[in-house]
Amino acid sequence: MNPSAVLRISCPDQSGIVAAVATWVASVGGNIVHAEQHTDASDAMFFQRVEFTHAGVTAVDTLAAGFAPLAAHWDMTFTLDALPWKPRTAILCSKQLHCAADLLARTTYGDLGLDIVAMISNHDDAAPLATSFSLPFHHVAVGEGATARATQEAQLGELLQSLNLDLVILARYMLVMPPSLVAPWTGRMINIHHSFLPAFIGANPYRQAHDRGVKVIGATAHYVSDVLDEGPIIAQDVAHISHRDDVAELTRQGRDLETVVLARAVRAHVEHRVLTFGNRTVVFG
Amino acid sequence: MNPSAVLRISCPDQSGIVAAVATWVASVGGNIVHAEQHTDASDAMFFQRVEFTHAGVTAVDTLAAGFAPLAAHWDMTFTLDALPWKPRTAILCSKQLHCAADLLARTTYGDLGLDIVAMISNHDDAAPLATSFSLPFHHVAVGEGATARATQEAQLGELLQSLNLDLVILARYMLVMPPSLVAPWTGRMINIHHSFLPAFIGANPYRQAHDRGVKVIGATAHYVSDVLDEGPIIAQDVAHISHRDDVAELTRQGRDLETVVLARAVRAHVEHRVLTFGNRTVVFG
Amino acid sequence: MNPSAVLRISCPDQSGIVAAVATWVASVGGNIVHAEQHTDASDAMFFQRVEFTHAGVTAVDTLAAGFAPLAAHWDMTFTLDALPWKPRTAILCSKQLHCAADLLARTTYGDLGLDIVAMISNHDDAAPLATSFSLPFHHVAVGEGATARATQEAQLGELLQSLNLDLVILARYMLVMPPSLVAPWTGRMINIHHSFLPAFIGANPYRQAHDRGVKVIGATAHYVSDVLDEGPIIAQDVAHISHRDDVAELTRQGRDLETVVLARAVRAHVEHRVLTFGNRTVVFG
Amino acid sequence: MNPSAVLRISCPDQSGIVAAVATWVASVGGNIVHAEQHTDASDAMFFQRVEFTHAGVTAVDTLAAGFAPLAAHWDMTFTLDALPWKPRTAILCSKQLHCAADLLARTTYGDLGLDIVAMISNHDDAAPLATSFSLPFHHVAVGEGATARATQEAQLGELLQSLNLDLVILARYMLVMPPSLVAPWTGRMINIHHSFLPAFIGANPYRQAHDRGVKVIGATAHYVSDVLDEGPIIAQDVAHISHRDDVAELTRQGRDLETVVLARAVRAHVEHRVLTFGNRTVVFG
Repeated sequence: MNPSAVLRISCPDQSGIVAAVATWVASVGGNIVHAEQHTDASDAMFFQRVEFTHAGVTAVDTLAAGFAPLAAHWDMTFTLDALPWKPRTAILCSKQLHCAADLLARTTYGDLGLDIVAMISNHDDAAPLATSFSLPFHHVAVGEGATARATQEAQLGELLQSLNLDLVILARYMLVMPPSLVAPWTGRMINIHHSFLPAFIGANPYRQAHDRGVKVIGATAHYVSDVLDEGPIIAQDVAHISHRDDVAELTRQGRDLETVVLARAVRAHVEHRVLTFGNRTVVFG
Repeated sequence: MNPSAVLRISCPDQSGIVAAVATWVASVGGNIVHAEQHTDASDAMFFQRVEFTHAGVTAVDTLAAGFAPLAAHWDMTFTLDALPWKPRTAILCSKQLHCAADLLARTTYGDLGLDIVAMISNHDDAAPLATSFSLPFHHVAVGEGATARATQEAQLGELLQSLNLDLVILARYMLVMPPSLVAPWTGRMINIHHSFLPAFIGANPYRQAHDRGVKVIGATAHYVSDVLDEGPIIAQDVAHISHRDDVAELTRQGRDLETVVLARAVRAHVEHRVLTFGNRTVVFG
Repeated sequence: MNPSAVLRISCPDQSGIVAAVATWVASVGGNIVHAEQHTDASDAMFFQRVEFTHAGVTAVDTLAAGFAPLAAHWDMTFTLDALPWKPRTAILCSKQLHCAADLLARTTYGDLGLDIVAMISNHDDAAPLATSFSLPFHHVAVGEGATARATQEAQLGELLQSLNLDLVILARYMLVMPPSLVAPWTGRMINIHHSFLPAFIGANPYRQAHDRGVKVIGATAHYVSDVLDEGPIIAQDVAHISHRDDVAELTRQGRDLETVVLARAVRAHVEHRVLTFGNRTVVFG
Repeated sequence: MNPSAVLRISCPDQSGIVAAVATWVASVGGNIVHAEQHTDASDAMFFQRVEFTHAGVTAVDTLAAGFAPLAAHWDMTFTLDALPWKPRTAILCSKQLHCAADLLARTTYGDLGLDIVAMISNHDDAAPLATSFSLPFHHVAVGEGATARATQEAQLGELLQSLNLDLVILARYMLVMPPSLVAPWTGRMINIHHSFLPAFIGANPYRQAHDRGVKVIGATAHYVSDVLDEGPIIAQDVAHISHRDDVAELTRQGRDLETVVLARAVRAHVEHRVLTFGNRTVVFG
């Protein structure tokens, strides 16, 4: 089977782009197996994802270098990546472990192709989970004193840098991260928030949902930006609830949403199906 | 077939209520055909809806009078209503007519038992729709000048009062109503808002949803209170969307949500299945 | 605003098709505003829908004639249609009128661009509905006697032929049609079936669903083929139910599914977004 | 906190049952915290689940003995169980481990109160999973020869009997069980089938779904009966799919349905919320 590559481009909408890209793929011996495009009329932007097989004698970096002149001509931003991709990943969590356990189970017994190299938490509850999946566990606790939080953030930032990661997943990591921690991971750090954002930003969204008396709860997976719960949304899902469901029950039902939505977002990222523009995403199928 | 009655009660949670109510129903010759209860543990409140058939020699008002001492003993708030109920209803709309048209079609060709006695709008677009369903149409427009809006609100308030209504449905009526207009209709005025509240309160929720890049849109039917889009929620539903859907497409897809959610809420109200407490509802099945 | 055209192609999967099609569109001065493709790996088939604006000096038929050599070269089946399209449509129904009423309301007060030229029924219940929307009503009843059904089918077939129709919608038309009636309308006759096919084929699907004790009901819109309920599926949707819902309640809840699913399928057809192959469909977004 | 008990009754519908049951609960010092009832009009049957706290000086068996005369009087079938209940459970699986892994993760890191005492499989793939959760693994393989299958079934039957189980979960166990193996576990053996039954009974439902071209796939959890895939359905859920999804993708997406639906059914069973009658279930909320 021939290797695959994924080309993602975004550029001002112009006539002729599709033909130019398809012609280029054909010129390097590529065979398009999946292509999807989107024109955002309000912003006059064009987005495309082209997945193609190729002979494999050419490395992806060489292909990218060959595409660069075309990209420059059309004023494109682009990425060109190999598929399948198995990103070096760290999973961060706190006391709630269902999302982390789910990601580990999918990686081990399912079909999520992550190379998980570390589990990290501000609590030590996750240590047995890491052990049962033979993963290194890093306990980065918040100590005592006025500077404890800053110290923890510095330690965490250094740890993440040291691990040579492609992807950081906040799988119910409950400490808000400062912009300095987030900035190096733009577009490479995915968080799961337990509400359908932008409703119920911040702490205790299930409590907020209960007190407002909503009939639907949700979960949102998004890239982390420097504004809390405001980054580009990758995936959301919802479930119907009723007056019968108290906060504990919402929390329980919400877990299924959180695990499924986070896994869906991570998969889309790993398959190079997400493009971001401004605070929004294009997620190709 | 024997007539039916619906008893709805809410009271502080106490041991023995269920037996007391069931015993009372049996004492008046009633046969319970459906009963549902809910205990809200956080507020220590008990809610129940009991639907029962009875011989019919006794009027519902007499039944209610007979229940009153029991209610007083247990510190209950209660209503006792006949079923089926065909409330005298006014439908208010503006330029978007899909919700109004749907309610009329359900009433005429479907199974929604409303006695629609008036269509009211601040625009005259709905006149042909009213005519084709042989309904009186009231055009209550906003005129020119500084006091035009207040004049319109006064006219509308008087019109609603004059119609001897049981129910007012805001089927995409787009003018915000002042508290004085809303107050007489507490628990009897239902609005459809085109977002999953509390996200995207106010104007242009589909535009807001698009700009935030959400992957789910929704609609919310609620009793109108004196705070905009803050009344007790009766029904909500949602639909998955993608980057492909621009504001016009969200608006189009949202119409199906709005019509279905509004009809669902109106039906629950007409079947005496809704109880409110604070800003929340219990909607029995 | 320039006119739009939609090119739909299906052909054996080959390298270079996308480039060839995009180059052709550019060669006729077209600007691709939306393109979507699908490769069915198991059948080695390629499908594409390309929506493009063009100067409009060229008629769609002329464009199609110009594309024919390319299509022949790549062994393509293709259609090339103008957009928007307002097909001459007949709506067939029986006693249940919710789907028909919904299609009329969407056409008149919503955004479904049908040119409805006839309502046809084997019962006369729909006559007032047709009248209130100023539409001709054709009552094609089944008479008495051994040949009554055949006579009715012949009358109906002739009526459909005489109306110069683009589209026939079976909006809860409850008589099974013989192959001779269906054959002339392959790919142009859409039916709504009140179950998630292939479960509960045939009569009384809500009764069947109730007796099997399912927890989900559905509705299916499909092109009519000569085998009952076996044609290519265009759209399906489902709703959760519970033990509480008797057959009457399933029927009532199912109506919302039926109207929404049928309208969704009709819209996809009208927007030239459906391709069929064998007994399956590709429905582009 | 006082202990809880759950009374489930089914009997011919009669006037006065609710009062009689509620009076009995009060007579033993019980306080009803949740009650739900259902009258099946077509079968004239009454079903009720009453959850109540009690002083705890009385054992559940003694309570049940005390209720028996009342049950006899009203011709009731009933069960009376303690809550919470942590059933001794065996999980059976084959090569697909996502459901088994999910149940283990929910038991260990989530909130599903099972006492899992054995993992059993006809393959040895699940051994590492059992080990990582410190569970005994039983490999009951099918050997060679004409009688191999019968031998395996006999071994499995004996193993299940020897484990003193309350519950057997078929978490994608792919061998069809003969009636003799199923009979001892009526109402205590739950299977997950990877389609929305009754569509796509038997082998390869995702292949069947793909070939029929459906737009929705599903999963069904049901009690196992002696007819394949025909037992009483406890839970079902569905997901929208498109032409893009090949059999492998349906299989992948279906996994999320299977794990969530199976866990939902198991939870309902463990909380004594399910009653069966004929081939249907009542699942109280």
